Amino acid sequence: MTRVLLATKNLGKVAELQRILSEFVLEGASYEPGPETGASFAENALAKAREGVAASGLPSVADDSGLTVDALNGMPGILSARWAGRHGDDAANLSLVLGQLADVPSARRGAAFVCAAAYALPDGRSEVVHGELRGSLLYEPRGTNGFGYDPIFVPDGLSVTSAELSPEDKDAISHRGQAFRALAPLLTAALA
Amino acid sequence: MTRVLLATKNLGKVAELQRILSEFVLEGASYEPGPETGASFAENALAKAREGVAASGLPSVADDSGLTVDALNGMPGILSARWAGRHGDDAANLSLVLGQLADVPSARRGAAFVCAAAYALPDGRSEVVHGELRGSLLYEPRGTNGFGYDPIFVPDGLSVTSAELSPEDKDAISHRGQAFRALAPLLTAALA
Repeated sequence: MTRVLLATKNLGKVAELQRILSEFVLEGASYEPGPETGASFAENALAKAREGVAASGLPSVADDSGLTVDALNGMPGILSARWAGRHGDDAANLSLVLGQLADVPSARRGAAFVCAAAYALPDGRSEVVHGELRGSLLYEPRGTNGFGYDPIFVPDGLSVTSAELSPEDKDAISHRGQAFRALAPLLTAALA
Repeated sequence: MTRVLLATKNLGKVAELQRILSEFVLEGASYEPGPETGASFAENALAKAREGVAASGLPSVADDSGLTVDALNGMPGILSARWAGRHGDDAANLSLVLGQLADVPSARRGAAFVCAAAYALPDGRSEVVHGELRGSLLYEPRGTNGFGYDPIFVPDGLSVTSAELSPEDKDAISHRGQAFRALAPLLTAALA
């Protein structure tokens, strides 16, 4: 089976995506990824995948994901993991979005989780696809599964938050699951 | 001279705008304004002006203003005064924008101060106009005049921040000055 680098140091993400990209043997990154300076999810995902190729010489896949809030003109978007001003403080990020939306009525609390998933190959070819999960935002967090903005996000058609879904149920509908399920056959074809 | 309510409790704003709306006698609001729940500067300015008419029976003017940052898809926008999650904490708001833009390169740090200025009359007529001041954002604050985001905003064509301008120089180019100078003749004509 073809070895593919997943350009992340997050081993949980490697395990999750190994289930979707089951035709390949995924490896995590051993290098420190550079800062994300792209202007879109797609730019960041492609840059990460290309960085993976440069570091490993292997075909590489990567994603960039975030929450786009209608009443914030699509932000936090690519800044989702650093919305409160520093990287990775999930509680501060979630609390900030709730504060910013405190006066926003239910009818304007639409949002979407968006994922761009990319592959890059040593010969220079690359592709990027998107997955999206629409929903709306609560006024208070609910649920303890998941991470990030999951506790305030209710997917359209459901009455529970993403943080109240089992990991398997979340994978089945998630933006990241959709994007990588779309990317898998493209990568298979490109490597054939 | 015609009395006009300026729908704000900020007496500094009353004095500033009295210089521009010199044909009228401006009065500040004596009531507590309601929350701003509109989806745009214009909606908020109109709602405030109409609230002023309802409370006073006088022709009323109002504005809603904020900073629109290109790399934040136009936000903080109408949430400028509460960007860090609570109202009126200028230092927290400015610090948050700097944190969110920490990795954004100079070429993508464009921004604009935008003001919507509205009048509403007891007979139901109303109008709203906009003023805009384009510029770009620094990585560190500079200057002690002004308020809000002034210390990180360099107007296009200048090399100093809005917080390094004198109040008179700032008034001459500001989004709020532009909007109210455009509104004044419309209000005069409407009241003629």
